[in-house]
Amino acid sequence: MKVRLGIDLGGTFIKAGIVSEHYKVLYNFKVPSGAESGNQVVIYNLKRICNDLLMICNNEGYKVLSIGIGSPGTISQPNGKVTDASPNIKNWQGTILTKVFSDYNIPVYADNDANSVALAEYLIGYKCRYKDMVFVTIGTGIGGGLIIDGSLYRGSSYTAAEIGHIVIKHNGRLCGCGRRGCLEAYASVPNMMKRFRYWSKKHGGKALQKVSPAEMYGLFKKGDKAAKYTIEENADYLGAGLGSLVNVLNPQAIVIGGGFADAGREYISLIQEAIKRNAFKAAVSNLKVLKARLSNNAGFIGASLLSFVDDNGKIIAK
Amino acid sequence: MKVRLGIDLGGTFIKAGIVSEHYKVLYNFKVPSGAESGNQVVIYNLKRICNDLLMICNNEGYKVLSIGIGSPGTISQPNGKVTDASPNIKNWQGTILTKVFSDYNIPVYADNDANSVALAEYLIGYKCRYKDMVFVTIGTGIGGGLIIDGSLYRGSSYTAAEIGHIVIKHNGRLCGCGRRGCLEAYASVPNMMKRFRYWSKKHGGKALQKVSPAEMYGLFKKGDKAAKYTIEENADYLGAGLGSLVNVLNPQAIVIGGGFADAGREYISLIQEAIKRNAFKAAVSNLKVLKARLSNNAGFIGASLLSFVDDNGKIIAK
Repeated sequence: MKVRLGIDLGGTFIKAGIVSEHYKVLYNFKVPSGAESGNQVVIYNLKRICNDLLMICNNEGYKVLSIGIGSPGTISQPNGKVTDASPNIKNWQGTILTKVFSDYNIPVYADNDANSVALAEYLIGYKCRYKDMVFVTIGTGIGGGLIIDGSLYRGSSYTAAEIGHIVIKHNGRLCGCGRRGCLEAYASVPNMMKRFRYWSKKHGGKALQKVSPAEMYGLFKKGDKAAKYTIEENADYLGAGLGSLVNVLNPQAIVIGGGFADAGREYISLIQEAIKRNAFKAAVSNLKVLKARLSNNAGFIGASLLSFVDDNGKIIAK
Repeated sequence: MKVRLGIDLGGTFIKAGIVSEHYKVLYNFKVPSGAESGNQVVIYNLKRICNDLLMICNNEGYKVLSIGIGSPGTISQPNGKVTDASPNIKNWQGTILTKVFSDYNIPVYADNDANSVALAEYLIGYKCRYKDMVFVTIGTGIGGGLIIDGSLYRGSSYTAAEIGHIVIKHNGRLCGCGRRGCLEAYASVPNMMKRFRYWSKKHGGKALQKVSPAEMYGLFKKGDKAAKYTIEENADYLGAGLGSLVNVLNPQAIVIGGGFADAGREYISLIQEAIKRNAFKAAVSNLKVLKARLSNNAGFIGASLLSFVDDNGKIIAK
């Protein structure tokens, strides 16, 4: 059987899997990435995982067509160099990802992690139905990937789709990126949870209790006022940022992923309504706002598909 | 000699010209569009202008390859139907632009006016140098056009590049479009002139004097405080909106046009600095912020080039 390996490097975990030619996950696991110990430890962990996957393939008689890796940061093509990275992984900038796996004589592909997920949602999740598709992931940060005219659009220096850094409030709240008023500074999950504590306090609720995003979503469904305000406000922020995006790109679909988006359809509906309030009628009349379909495995599945994309983002059969 | 006709429909004037195969303007003129009298008058004027241009071509022995028209509003392909329009031209929505010129047995092409100018700046102004290029026009409104991967990107329902309606202030100032906080509500030329009167008053200057944008730019160059504040503030607003755009699209170049941008290079430099403050370092490190090159004739020159673009925005030789 022919397979592809996909590796999804995150700040906390490395998730990896063996994916069949028919996009079935044959095997997968996750290990700590060791990001806090710096680039050398991360590279060691990546190699170890790749060795493990290759050993399994060897035992099972799988022929490995390609290795793909999705990483945070700006990843240039064709060699997968990390040209810009958040400080989550010490000294990650400068790493040439294809070189990390160059010992195996197997073609290696690397891209930004959110680009990989966008690719997976486009090719597998929604089966190429939306040629102009924006993928947005809402988590600790807000990121995304763009499919334009059926190609993965990486931008002229591979930094496109920084959706979390659309400014929604000129001179507004300080963002982790050092600038002010970014969508991420208002609508990321940590910021949402801060607002939940604020609204809870205001309504005499369980302000000091540690509540997880999933628990808050449960409270929302049960009609909790603070949770309702929090989620409606969050959707409103997202509507302002994504409304701008829709006015500029006029995509067919926005696919929303990330831990919190998994929670439920009501949240997606609220975001859809907020986008409609913030964008041109002509631009939203046919717009679909959809839940990501691949959930937790999207990262490594997307990475396993990177061999389908050429240096210019064109999707080709490989 | 082979020529193309280009017609640029505006709210006040129709500008039209005969353009040679080598993109030289052989003949051009402008007439009032008659927009205030409604769609029938505008259509009559468009036909009359086209007749005049064709008569000149006939007299000169020019062979007319195509007729192109740029119009405000959302223009769908392939037949150039106006699917959405501002109320500037009464009953403009629904007009099928290619039908207006269907009597002549000459191929007719129609698109949004700012898309046409973006095309002209890409093909002629900057000679295809920037495959990912954003054109922005700053005037009574703020609009634009996108060149993505060397194609004209119109969006899934032909409403892309509504750059003036990027939200820069969530729940901010009311915009002409009915929503709040749009870039246009802060940075259009009329809004800039309002701010100039505000700053003039504040600094004991010529608050009540009617000053044109060009005159204000002259005052700016002479060191006038109110003009300085106005233009710096305007550049700052544009930086917030265009910074968002750069974070999403990571283009190679932003080309700035419109009456006011013609004023001078200092203004373009201020906008460039503001974008750099508002966008990711990796996204702006190679970004060029440039002045439009075609100035007043860009509209009809761009319209004359529409035959180069297929229904999907791909630029083809015709």
